[in-house]
Amino acid sequence: MSSTSEQGPHDGFRARLHTVIFEADTPAGRAFDVALLWAIVFSILAVMLESVASVREQYGLALSVAEWAFTAIFATEYVLRLVAVRRPLDYARSFYGVVDLLAVLPSFLSILFPGAQSLLVVRVLRLLRVFRILKLGHLLGQAEVLMTALRASRAKITVFLVAVLSIDVVMGALMYIVEGPAHGFDNIPRSMYWAIVTMTTVGFGDITPKTVLGQALASVLMLMGYGILAVPTGIVSVELANAARQRPDTQACPGCGTQGHDLDARFCKHCGTELDWKKV
Amino acid sequence: MSSTSEQGPHDGFRARLHTVIFEADTPAGRAFDVALLWAIVFSILAVMLESVASVREQYGLALSVAEWAFTAIFATEYVLRLVAVRRPLDYARSFYGVVDLLAVLPSFLSILFPGAQSLLVVRVLRLLRVFRILKLGHLLGQAEVLMTALRASRAKITVFLVAVLSIDVVMGALMYIVEGPAHGFDNIPRSMYWAIVTMTTVGFGDITPKTVLGQALASVLMLMGYGILAVPTGIVSVELANAARQRPDTQACPGCGTQGHDLDARFCKHCGTELDWKKV
Amino acid sequence: MSSTSEQGPHDGFRARLHTVIFEADTPAGRAFDVALLWAIVFSILAVMLESVASVREQYGLALSVAEWAFTAIFATEYVLRLVAVRRPLDYARSFYGVVDLLAVLPSFLSILFPGAQSLLVVRVLRLLRVFRILKLGHLLGQAEVLMTALRASRAKITVFLVAVLSIDVVMGALMYIVEGPAHGFDNIPRSMYWAIVTMTTVGFGDITPKTVLGQALASVLMLMGYGILAVPTGIVSVELANAARQRPDTQACPGCGTQGHDLDARFCKHCGTELDWKKV
Amino acid sequence: MSSTSEQGPHDGFRARLHTVIFEADTPAGRAFDVALLWAIVFSILAVMLESVASVREQYGLALSVAEWAFTAIFATEYVLRLVAVRRPLDYARSFYGVVDLLAVLPSFLSILFPGAQSLLVVRVLRLLRVFRILKLGHLLGQAEVLMTALRASRAKITVFLVAVLSIDVVMGALMYIVEGPAHGFDNIPRSMYWAIVTMTTVGFGDITPKTVLGQALASVLMLMGYGILAVPTGIVSVELANAARQRPDTQACPGCGTQGHDLDARFCKHCGTELDWKKV
Repeated sequence: MSSTSEQGPHDGFRARLHTVIFEADTPAGRAFDVALLWAIVFSILAVMLESVASVREQYGLALSVAEWAFTAIFATEYVLRLVAVRRPLDYARSFYGVVDLLAVLPSFLSILFPGAQSLLVVRVLRLLRVFRILKLGHLLGQAEVLMTALRASRAKITVFLVAVLSIDVVMGALMYIVEGPAHGFDNIPRSMYWAIVTMTTVGFGDITPKTVLGQALASVLMLMGYGILAVPTGIVSVELANAARQRPDTQACPGCGTQGHDLDARFCKHCGTELDWKKV
Repeated sequence: MSSTSEQGPHDGFRARLHTVIFEADTPAGRAFDVALLWAIVFSILAVMLESVASVREQYGLALSVAEWAFTAIFATEYVLRLVAVRRPLDYARSFYGVVDLLAVLPSFLSILFPGAQSLLVVRVLRLLRVFRILKLGHLLGQAEVLMTALRASRAKITVFLVAVLSIDVVMGALMYIVEGPAHGFDNIPRSMYWAIVTMTTVGFGDITPKTVLGQALASVLMLMGYGILAVPTGIVSVELANAARQRPDTQACPGCGTQGHDLDARFCKHCGTELDWKKV
Repeated sequence: MSSTSEQGPHDGFRARLHTVIFEADTPAGRAFDVALLWAIVFSILAVMLESVASVREQYGLALSVAEWAFTAIFATEYVLRLVAVRRPLDYARSFYGVVDLLAVLPSFLSILFPGAQSLLVVRVLRLLRVFRILKLGHLLGQAEVLMTALRASRAKITVFLVAVLSIDVVMGALMYIVEGPAHGFDNIPRSMYWAIVTMTTVGFGDITPKTVLGQALASVLMLMGYGILAVPTGIVSVELANAARQRPDTQACPGCGTQGHDLDARFCKHCGTELDWKKV
Repeated sequence: MSSTSEQGPHDGFRARLHTVIFEADTPAGRAFDVALLWAIVFSILAVMLESVASVREQYGLALSVAEWAFTAIFATEYVLRLVAVRRPLDYARSFYGVVDLLAVLPSFLSILFPGAQSLLVVRVLRLLRVFRILKLGHLLGQAEVLMTALRASRAKITVFLVAVLSIDVVMGALMYIVEGPAHGFDNIPRSMYWAIVTMTTVGFGDITPKTVLGQALASVLMLMGYGILAVPTGIVSVELANAARQRPDTQACPGCGTQGHDLDARFCKHCGTELDWKKV
């Protein structure tokens, strides 16, 4: 970063801008993040309120003004981000670059396509921008542990989902035959929706078995859901325990720098060097 | 405490009062606590019964008398507590001081504002007083382990809640567009309420998706809720396991420094040195 | 047992009877248990079928005959049990003695009090007799591990239940004020029922919040239920893990015979004797 | 396998056919598996779409053609499998042999018994064939860990199910007496269905308690379900943790015999000896 700051007055300005907008180490950077966080939260609250019919009728103009104000703020921010980075195209095509663009696009598009409701959802995607800001916060470490645990159990969760969907298809077809359209099981996709609602123990009750055989099948499915519910919980628990156990990362091998030794390890598992005891 | 008892007859009385009211070591203190516990339980039962229309009509007078009796008991207790402590203002402003005041205030306020129903809830807050008494009981150790586990997973739970709320907002907006006011998804806040009801697997069924796309989205949300449900469970499991494991941790082997011995261990499991007993 | 068999012909018969009826080691004892198990299962199926109106109308007589046949079998068994034990009164007052009596009593009482429906439930209690028989089976070990885990977490579960009930009372009172009788929250007990239905993620949907504030409160309660659901799961997981870990019991200390050492223990934690390595 | 390929041109062809159809090591075998996977998925999608009334009316002919095309594919595959194996009868009677036959049978039977809807479900069983293909994929290892965990907890899960069903029968009978047919608890089997719906926290809401006593009983059942829900989760968690821990267990240190090294360990964590690599 120090090398860039010597490339001219413009680059020095860009480097400072980059520090304020993209980093959170300096007071200015932190203030910018906090202000942006509030702008995002309020803009989403505005979108929510706008969807409430009674509020829209009464405060429609105020919400419209607020929406354009937030759009102006986010548009300015987007331009500043483009200026602050050295390769604007790379930023514009990155995940957060697209998200930042989506934050301002709907308002402009709503002029071209008035009344397009689906633009509303796109505006809600502004929420994704919160994650960039939170990423800089102190929650990073914890989120990483969670992500590690989830990533480690990805294969097991896939097996689990395939099994759940298979049971779902078979039970859906069975219930469609047993209960039939007369009791709300109109077709197999709808029966599968019911099977998922039942297995995940959500149980809306919009479709329920009425025949004795259907209720017996549903009971089996529910008890099975019970046991199956245990699998992802167990998976994540074990992986979280592993992730947590590997954190005593602070103890790096003096020989090869490897981390992640067990708490009771006396020798580095990679190079065999004796580990330092003081840390433990 | 022994020094205070020598400061005069009044202070001796106050010290004894303090022991009876605030401590549970003496027979008198324990009897006071048990009596207070029953008074709280019965006063809350009275509030509950009063809310039942048929009971109120038939036993309204008896409940009114009971309410004033409990108020008299709690008011006396409040005054005694003020007398018993050396800095009454500090007590009055403490958490339990406010709770104790709230236990008597509603009855007196109901004279000024007759029919104010919300005073009823305040009366239910008397329940919080139970915790002070239970704190003195034998459940303390267990509650502490639970609290330690919860406190240790606070950061992870925050990350988890942010993720849940984000999914909630996005899914709520999506369902508002897909299903719309015709199927009960009147606005985004209501859709978010539905999304929370669905993700937490509560599934009231007061609002349910009717379109095929809506049901497909709901199925995805439910299966996601499944996996997400596993995260807090895993977090708390791991932290509980840690909390349980860390309790005996203080006992390090004097010979080799190894920790993590069982609660009933008398000799180090690594080097056979006799362990120190005082800590356990 | 060998000493009792020498006390005369009657006692020899009683001892043999005892072996057949109370034990499951001999072929005769095992055959008796299996026959009794089927009798219990069929008698409960008969009670169930009798409760179905259409079946009762059509096969009422057959079910009545079956009921008296089962009663005759269980009555004979009860008398044989009284004969087989040396202290009949002790048996009659024991838990299983009462359960055995309850298995035959309802049929006789139904002559005195015709149409007493609640006798039906008592007949269902015959199911409890299954546990005596299963106890003798191979499931004993597993049930013991489960019971140990549950017993060990009793205190934590108590704390948990007190917390759940407290939240329940406060939320119930709050929802009663916020939603009121107009939306189904007729009184505080009913609101508490709703709060339990919601917190446990059952979500019947017979009572649901209609106001915005009520739905917001419900959302908080549901997310809280999420986190709270994790506590008993975590508790039982940890205790099950402990119970399972303590089973490597096979490794007894050669010095003092203590069991339950950790898997990586090299010295007995009780007496410091070096442990045998072959078993691990 | 090499010995069979020398038994003549026919056997050589059969061996090659076997490799393509039953194995997934060669490019041809892998291509065959992928093609089959898509055929199965599309044939099941066709069955699903056929069950939707509006789609059936509009695209009935196209779906009928597709169904016969899939039947032709699967029939050809079945014949090829019979040819490829050396003992066709053994294959035809094996689990997957029956599943493969069931994949083609319904279409032919539908000519004999027109309109037999239950044949539809049989067609859905084609899904089971997916598992054979997935078995050859990279998910095998993970599925095995899951299966080991489930098999290890079989006995505990049996105890758990017996306990759940017992509570279910007793609660079902109780609610039948307390609420009665007037509130939807028509008979004991239906009450048991309700009890399972409640205990598993599914909570459809098609049958709900209306009396105060019934709601109190339901509350107890729900809180009990809470605690009971924790048992299978705990069981599976512990077994998953064991299964995960036992995998690297085979790798014992040649120097000191310590086991339980991490999967990426190259040196013993206890004595620093280099570990053998072949096993991992």
